[in-house]
This record gives sequence, C-alpha cells and structure tokens, in this order.
Amino acid sequence: MIEVPAGLQPLLDDFRAGKRIALARAITLVENEREGFQAFLHAVLSEGARRGRRLGFTGPPGAGKSTLLAEVASAYLARSESVGVVAVDPTSPFSGGALLGDRIRMNDLATDPGVFIRSMATRGSLGGLATSTREVLDLMDSFGFARVLIETVGVGQTELEITGAADTVVVVLVPESGDGVQAMKAGLMEIADIFVVNKADRPGADRLIKEISSAIHLRAPGNDWAIPVLRVVAQKGEGVPELVLAVEAHGAWLERTGELAARRRGRAERRVRDVAERALRRLTWDDDRVRQRLAIGVDAVANGRETWYSAADGIVGEVVQSRVHNRARNQE
Amino acid sequence: MIEVPAGLQPLLDDFRAGKRIALARAITLVENEREGFQAFLHAVLSEGARRGRRLGFTGPPGAGKSTLLAEVASAYLARSESVGVVAVDPTSPFSGGALLGDRIRMNDLATDPGVFIRSMATRGSLGGLATSTREVLDLMDSFGFARVLIETVGVGQTELEITGAADTVVVVLVPESGDGVQAMKAGLMEIADIFVVNKADRPGADRLIKEISSAIHLRAPGNDWAIPVLRVVAQKGEGVPELVLAVEAHGAWLERTGELAARRRGRAERRVRDVAERALRRLTWDDDRVRQRLAIGVDAVANGRETWYSAADGIVGEVVQSRVHNRARNQE
Repeated sequence: MIEVPAGLQPLLDDFRAGKRIALARAITLVENEREGFQAFLHAVLSEGARRGRRLGFTGPPGAGKSTLLAEVASAYLARSESVGVVAVDPTSPFSGGALLGDRIRMNDLATDPGVFIRSMATRGSLGGLATSTREVLDLMDSFGFARVLIETVGVGQTELEITGAADTVVVVLVPESGDGVQAMKAGLMEIADIFVVNKADRPGADRLIKEISSAIHLRAPGNDWAIPVLRVVAQKGEGVPELVLAVEAHGAWLERTGELAARRRGRAERRVRDVAERALRRLTWDDDRVRQRLAIGVDAVANGRETWYSAADGIVGEVVQSRVHNRARNQE
Repeated sequence: MIEVPAGLQPLLDDFRAGKRIALARAITLVENEREGFQAFLHAVLSEGARRGRRLGFTGPPGAGKSTLLAEVASAYLARSESVGVVAVDPTSPFSGGALLGDRIRMNDLATDPGVFIRSMATRGSLGGLATSTREVLDLMDSFGFARVLIETVGVGQTELEITGAADTVVVVLVPESGDGVQAMKAGLMEIADIFVVNKADRPGADRLIKEISSAIHLRAPGNDWAIPVLRVVAQKGEGVPELVLAVEAHGAWLERTGELAARRRGRAERRVRDVAERALRRLTWDDDRVRQRLAIGVDAVANGRETWYSAADGIVGEVVQSRVHNRARNQE
C-alpha cells in the first residue's frame, strides 16, 4: 500500500511542484478511491508537518455561509495567504447552487489565482463522505495552502463529523432562521468556537444574539475560551474584519493551551481507525466465500427463514473463526 | 448471539404480551447496545413477517413536519390503526424542541393510548445512529403497530439514509424556506414519493409547487409512480385527508409493481452488511494486540514518523494476515 504505483509518479511530481491541475487530479483520485490513492496520500503527508489552518463554516441553509466564507477568503488573499476551499454543503453556490446576488462574488473568488475551490459531492456510502472529505482536506494542507476553509450545512450527523476536522468552527445563524435556539440544541452549540449572527441588520438580530449568549453561559465550564458572538452583514462586508481577528485569537488560544495538539491527536486516532476499518470492510466483502454467504443470507432473510442477525452471524463466523484458530495456533 | 440471555426473557415475554413499558425498555436496550440486544431483536423478528407500513416525513427545519405527522397520526388513530412514531430530527418537538402552538397538539398525541412516540438522540458514532434507528423501527414493527411514522430532518447524509428505511417518503417544504429547489438538489428529489407544500396559504406557495412540479418532470423516466405535489395547511388540517389517500395509493403501487418486495430485499442486504460490519468492528478494536498497535500507531503519527495510512496498514496486517494464513492452511 505504501508504495506509490509507477503510474502515479508523474502526478506526485506535479503535485510536489505545486501545479494546480495536479491538485485537482489528486482530489479526483482520492474521491474515487482509485488504485494507489492511499499510497499517494501517505507520500504527500509524509513530507513534513502540515501548516494549513483549517476554518469551518457551518449553519442552516440560507444563513449566508458561502458569502461569509468568500469575504473571509478575500481578507486572507489580501494579505497574500493562499486559500483552499472545500464545500460539502449541497445547497452552497460553491457546489453549483447559485444564489442570486452572491454569484458574482463567488465567481470573483473562483478566478483568483490564490484560491482553489472544490465541492464534494454528497453521494457515496454512509461514512464514505466524511472520510473522503478529510482526505481532500489533507491534500489541500499538503499542497501548501495557508488557509483551508470548509463549508458544511450545519444539520446532519455526517456533516457535523466533517466540521470536526476544522481547527476553528464558525457557526453562522441568521435572525430569520427562527430555529436559532432549536438548531443549537442539535449539536451546533457543542462544536462552535465562534458564533456569527449574519444579516444582523435585519429585525430579530438582537434577540438572536441574546439567545445565543445565554445558551453559551449554560455550557459546561472547564473550557476557558470565551466564545464570541459576532454581528455580521456578510453581503456588505460588515463585521468581517472582526471575524478574522476572532479566528486569529482562537488560533492563538489553541496553541497556547495545547488544545491544538490535543485535537489533532484525537483526530489522528479517528483517522487511523477509519482507514483501517475501510480496508477491513473492503477485504471482507471482496472475499468470495463471504459474498456467497451474503447472497445466501439475504435470500434466507427474504424468505423469512433468517433475520439479519442470524445471517450476519454466519458471515462474522466465516471471517473471525479463522482468525481465532490462527491465534490459538500461534500460541501453541 | 442468537440465544436470548436468561435475564432478558421476562422483557421478551412482556414485549410479546404487548406491554408498552416492555417496548420502551427494549428500545433502550437496543439504543445502548446492551448485552443480548441482537439476540432480542433476532427473537422478535423471527416471529413472522412484519406488517407495519413505514411512512417517513422529511424536510428542512421549520417546515412543519411534526405538525403534519401529528395530523396524519390522528387520521390513522381515528380509524383504529395504532401508530408508532420515531423522531430523529433534533429540532422536532417530539425530541424536546417545543414549537409554540404545536405543543398542545403534540401533547394530545402523546397521551393517546394508541400511539407510542420515541425520539432518537443524535449522539453516537458515525453510522451508529442510522443502524440504531433502523433497529428501533424493527422493534416498532414487531410490537405490532399498524403504522410506523419516522421524522427526520431532510439535510444530512445519515438522515437521508434513515429516511430510506421508510416504505413511503413524504418530503415537506414551505414557501418561505426559499431554498426549495436548492434543497431538492440535495437528494430530497431522489427520495421523495410524495411532495407536500405545507403552509400553502402563505405567499409563494404557487411558485414553489410549480418549481417542484417541473423538477419532477426532469427526473429520469422508468419510474411509473407519478409523484403528487400536495397543498397542505397542517396547522388547520387542510389537505391532510388528501395526503392520507396519496400514501394509500403509493402503498398500493408498491405492492402491485413488486417494488415493495424489491425495496425490502435491498434493505435486507444493507442490514446484513451493517450488522456484520458492526460485529467485525467491535471484534477488531476489542482485540488486545490491535489496541496496542493502535496506541503505538497514533503516537507515531503524532510524532510525524508515520501517517494514518501506514499506521492503519499495520493494524490491517495484524487482523488480516492471520486470516490469510489460515485460509492457506485450510487449502493445504
């Protein structure tokens, strides 16, 4: 696995040379899990510590996450920091969902040479999206972007998992979402490092800010980062400099407290598990005997002779018994 | 696995006797994956074909899914069909998120002896929620409800997977969601059997209905079920009888065309795979040698000496090699 196939060597060379087309191709390689993709990732990740800071934007559809992300990206570009963007929100303009008015701003961003935008399709099997997205983020880091921005829709378990791959998470809400406090219960409260009340020039903004602030106070203590609640009008750029400063402050806090290292270690463990589980899953279902058993088991379930528990039991037995036997043999 | 532990026998007896407290306890057993939960599920599923029809309600937060679900549940109760409800939407009133005005209706429903409501927590590991929810749905079926209603928020990959466990999926949108067509791109279009435009007495309803109808026409042909787009005001009960009729019509279509059997067979295969993968995952990570390797691997990743790919490779080797050896030995 660790050996990069010869066919991928030119791609690897171009990637290392910083060619953007190579990044695009590498992402496709990873997304489609084509042969050698893990070796490729291993090779680029081996080349030293990644430096890119990851900033996640999450919130309900219509909260203006993409517009805000574009504004923040522009701020980084203005100080010559390169930016990679990964959009996992299928309703995002970055993913092809064009929101009138925002479209021009998005196109401006998309044609800037300092920025690279990739939208992740939300197809694929359960759990697959989260793993693939994390690997695309790794590619972005390895390619050398100073900032990697992630946009996810703030509802849904897989999406929250992806957001957890960011160093700093910005939760974006709007007065008219109305479900502000409701949504917070859904897990946003736990992952937010910074709250943004976007479209803050509309009625209800003050009430929403008050709601969020009191919800923050109810959070369990022991976390000495004081979560800011920022008033932003992304369309006009109002409040964006303050957001950029808050992100810096959070980054400094992460480093000072050792929280950054702790979070990255936790993520590393999850990644090792994920990659191992994916490989084991594939080995299991690619095995001829297991596939035979699966087909027979599904028939039996359809005929009412078995349940999925008894059918799965047979498959697990097929896979595990041999391992157990072998273990016993090794101990002889 | 297939033997129900003696300690669970009284619960099983009470469950079979139709005691509601036993259903509640069985759900807790399954949610927490306590010892014997799979044997329990196997036992109740073995007792014959399930009869309950599953109806899923999905759509963005604030679309009024819960109110609509309560209205449809009342319609079933009025004709003496018992109803089980599983809410996976964390913003749902069923999950504790009380929406003013709806609350009374929900409480009415909750105290009706013909109905049983359970809200699923959205905690748990990736993929775990989908599997647990399916098992709770199985318990509801086995307990003997004529109708099992599922509420999920219509964004998020895990949530869409859960919705796929329903025989008939109702997608609920509202004029003011504005993101109507955007949301549809997010996979709702593919899973909808029936569209409901709720709060249809508000401005924008006609435009939304038109948008949905033309999007339906763009769908790939080969599916001879004509997806209805219904105009509903759930708060006033308007359009609810028409929705109930549409659900019946879809149910009849499912049976007539063999689509019901095909969908259930597809789901059975996924279930066998899921249950087997869960067991194999557990066996893998419970193994002492594997855990040792994991700890060593995570350290190596943190120190930059390895990547998660090489670390995972070592774990996979530990698990698989023995199996391969054994296979080779068996063929000698």
